Amino acid sequence: MNDRVYNFSAGPSMLADEVLKKIAEELTNYRSTGMSVMEMSHRGKEYLAIFNECKERLRRVMAIPDDYEILFLHGGATAQFSAVPLNLMKNGKADYIITGNFAKKAAQEAAKFGQVNVVFDTSEENHRRIPDLSELRFSADADYVHLCSNNTIFGTEWQTFPDTGKVPLVADMSSDILSRRINVADFGLIYAGAQKNMGIAGMAVVIIRKDLISADDARMPVLYNYGLQAKNDSMYNTPPTYTIYVLDKVLEWIEELGGLEEMEKRNRLKAGLLYDYLDSQSYYLPHSEKSSRSMMNVTFTTPDKETDALFAAKAAERGLLSLKGHRLVGGIRASIYNAMPLQGVRELIAFMDEFAKGR
Amino acid sequence: MNDRVYNFSAGPSMLADEVLKKIAEELTNYRSTGMSVMEMSHRGKEYLAIFNECKERLRRVMAIPDDYEILFLHGGATAQFSAVPLNLMKNGKADYIITGNFAKKAAQEAAKFGQVNVVFDTSEENHRRIPDLSELRFSADADYVHLCSNNTIFGTEWQTFPDTGKVPLVADMSSDILSRRINVADFGLIYAGAQKNMGIAGMAVVIIRKDLISADDARMPVLYNYGLQAKNDSMYNTPPTYTIYVLDKVLEWIEELGGLEEMEKRNRLKAGLLYDYLDSQSYYLPHSEKSSRSMMNVTFTTPDKETDALFAAKAAERGLLSLKGHRLVGGIRASIYNAMPLQGVRELIAFMDEFAKGR
Repeated sequence: MNDRVYNFSAGPSMLADEVLKKIAEELTNYRSTGMSVMEMSHRGKEYLAIFNECKERLRRVMAIPDDYEILFLHGGATAQFSAVPLNLMKNGKADYIITGNFAKKAAQEAAKFGQVNVVFDTSEENHRRIPDLSELRFSADADYVHLCSNNTIFGTEWQTFPDTGKVPLVADMSSDILSRRINVADFGLIYAGAQKNMGIAGMAVVIIRKDLISADDARMPVLYNYGLQAKNDSMYNTPPTYTIYVLDKVLEWIEELGGLEEMEKRNRLKAGLLYDYLDSQSYYLPHSEKSSRSMMNVTFTTPDKETDALFAAKAAERGLLSLKGHRLVGGIRASIYNAMPLQGVRELIAFMDEFAKGR
Repeated sequence: MNDRVYNFSAGPSMLADEVLKKIAEELTNYRSTGMSVMEMSHRGKEYLAIFNECKERLRRVMAIPDDYEILFLHGGATAQFSAVPLNLMKNGKADYIITGNFAKKAAQEAAKFGQVNVVFDTSEENHRRIPDLSELRFSADADYVHLCSNNTIFGTEWQTFPDTGKVPLVADMSSDILSRRINVADFGLIYAGAQKNMGIAGMAVVIIRKDLISADDARMPVLYNYGLQAKNDSMYNTPPTYTIYVLDKVLEWIEELGGLEEMEKRNRLKAGLLYDYLDSQSYYLPHSEKSSRSMMNVTFTTPDKETDALFAAKAAERGLLSLKGHRLVGGIRASIYNAMPLQGVRELIAFMDEFAKGR
């Protein structure tokens, strides 16, 4: 594991060294089975043990109550942009809060299948902030309220969540799941693509309150049917077996470190150092408002676009990779998910300071 | 790579030793990038090189004409059971040929989105055969004709394909793609889940004639929209990045061996040995008719169910795994995809002979 770089990519993104090491050790021959996990039948006892361990670990780590089902589904969070309205829009209406690009895409997709009421939209503020809870007015008859808990591109994150009463709250937690303790019971449904804090690309985890799962609905595409997937324990078709295995390894690593409390402590420390540095100087300009800052994606700009590009290029020479911001917001984005070591953040800050002083 | 077993699983299934070895070598640090492929941004130049190499290799290996698009899509073949009718049923009608379980599931799913005309159904013959081309009567006004080229569960395979004239032929080739040379231009669309001859679970490859790709259709779930996926080169959302990388390694292995002609030669040899043995004795009873035999899945029964179970258990003790047949057909199924070595088939035959003589 020598010569590792610090990869600040927004996703797919870093895996912990410990996770990669275990995966590599088990790759060609998993625990003397004579097989790689990649080769195992999803119906075989060796694989089912991994699958069940992964589900149990996730339940334990996130403290998921028994009245919630865990589904491992194909296609990343974007598949859930379709599946959520297809399954949950019983009366054809939902409230969406638009705080960034993916929140907007989710709302646009839902509008194919029913009436979308945009409760709040921060587009005109270039998504610099999360609305204050007092600003939100929900519809009484919505089937659900949808939000995106962390906005990867803009670097904002919900610090507390709205109480939507009897209307289920649905959250896309793709970029901050497993980064902090949340109370699962506050949500009707949580989903997350795996490629940020849960391992590798190609899967979404869906955590859904059981009473929201309908019986098998014959109208929708089969893989988006929560009732069918729940009945088949996510094995109506062959699940993304290896991706689930990697998630199990990631969860094992989190448990060994001390669970979500320890994860959150580390994330607060890392993000805190970076924001403290940003607040201590005037060369770099942070994008998001202080009250809405993300622990996962830290966004800022240098004085101009050319310097942004130079910054990213010079950082890459130091092994600090993928710092270029998304085209929608420009500037610099440092994604510091769970697997980014503290040392990576320290080296980034040292580089930033040196770069600024040299200008 | 010592202590490897011969895994006769129907899928996920064996990977070639050479493929696993390369994956393992590159796992923690891909070609001195300091990153695992699992961690790479799908937009980064290192990953795009892999992605493009994989597409080019597939085009070369299968001799895919330039007027066909290659898509790497989430969700396995089952997702395509929905996507094919959603995209191709312009007039709301399609012909389906039911020769097995997955062909039937594809037809059932298509019936959600339009009118399905079952051209032929071998259910009452327990799917022992593929219809003779002369038995097929297609609808003149169908949007497409759908078939499944190899029936994993029953062990039958189309030896030649029907000429459907101007109506596009759509084939689910999940369990025999890359096993033999086929003429891509005979098909309007070919799709295949990756977990048999293309690597690991969680993806389908779609090869589609470009004139069949519609413009962006706003009604369907976004990930099933071929127009949108083609416009975005399979990157509308994060693709299953690592699964594509493994496919690239599998294709590299096939090219190094000599391409599909060599693959087919090896497969004919392996399946031939097994069928020759079955035809030379009377203890085991082959399931499929001679004219319809699959090179990929060889199905047979022992004299009774208890002996079937005993056979599979005893074989497993010898490192010959996952030989139990699917519940729909019972008996024994030996899946001998591309990655199954000749030696695995030889050892299976030796065991079969010994087992039969001991009864």
